[in-house]
Amino acid sequence: MNFNMKEAIEVLERTPQSLDYFLSGLSNGWLQCHEGEGTWNVSEVIEHLIEGEKNNWIPRLELILKEGESASFPPFNRYAHIEAKTERPIEQSLFEFKEIRFQNIKKLKDLIDPEWHLELTGTHPAFGVVKVKELISAWVVHDLTHIAQIVRVMSERYRADVGPWKEYLGILKK
Amino acid sequence: MNFNMKEAIEVLERTPQSLDYFLSGLSNGWLQCHEGEGTWNVSEVIEHLIEGEKNNWIPRLELILKEGESASFPPFNRYAHIEAKTERPIEQSLFEFKEIRFQNIKKLKDLIDPEWHLELTGTHPAFGVVKVKELISAWVVHDLTHIAQIVRVMSERYRADVGPWKEYLGILKK
Repeated sequence: MNFNMKEAIEVLERTPQSLDYFLSGLSNGWLQCHEGEGTWNVSEVIEHLIEGEKNNWIPRLELILKEGESASFPPFNRYAHIEAKTERPIEQSLFEFKEIRFQNIKKLKDLIDPEWHLELTGTHPAFGVVKVKELISAWVVHDLTHIAQIVRVMSERYRADVGPWKEYLGILKK
Repeated sequence: MNFNMKEAIEVLERTPQSLDYFLSGLSNGWLQCHEGEGTWNVSEVIEHLIEGEKNNWIPRLELILKEGESASFPPFNRYAHIEAKTERPIEQSLFEFKEIRFQNIKKLKDLIDPEWHLELTGTHPAFGVVKVKELISAWVVHDLTHIAQIVRVMSERYRADVGPWKEYLGILKK
């Protein structure tokens, strides 16, 4: 096991600013491309990250602290941002993501004392009993998985353009 | 085909700054972890990106413009940065990457007029005939593939820590 709070927060606090640098001002070609019907474009991934900040990680931590295993987390709708169909400039979404993540890291530090709370348990609707430290670890890896998705979606756009280099570019293997 | 110079440069110019934001100041745990023997840690990926700026993309473009298909590219050693065993703070590597990429984008703009040069051809030692526009596309997707590698390597560190969430986190599937 490698988890510790300080290092987890290092990643959580870097993700929004890094994505802001990478994505702000990009042409629509990059922001609107996707991997086929029913898959997300870059803008939709950012909306999903915001949705997680609002309704997933911190609300679940609060529920564990309040109710322990007795109340199952409300299920998280991974398609809520698609159903809401927010269409706005990505710079606005990135700004919201930065703001809400900043607030949520403050809440995380207020809520969780790593000396006392990491082993506390709650009930996940699909997994059953889960620990606070598993939930925070998943929050970190959730950031990383969606960064990977963003660059994979963008790469797909140049699949034909790279010609024979496809063979050397792992991200195009699937 | 989706390639155009302006959009390709948008990605090339964002990668170093975004990685700088994401990686500067991270704990050694994140920077030194890897996916097993013979795989690269985050710092080694950055050294490899620098090596590509020095000996791969721009020198190959220059060779195409000078020699066309008549001279094969010198093979690029994908392990040069490992053999050199540079050990230095990642902030120094990121600074070098930003500087050299900045210079190389200037060279790219000077060398390549998208109206005239994109269809020019050179000889790749493994692939045979390749086009300028394929080489520049591959440069872009090479950035993206190594960003994906960085977040995948970091995720691996929390494979056990996320507990049952492993099932929902695509980056941990392999």
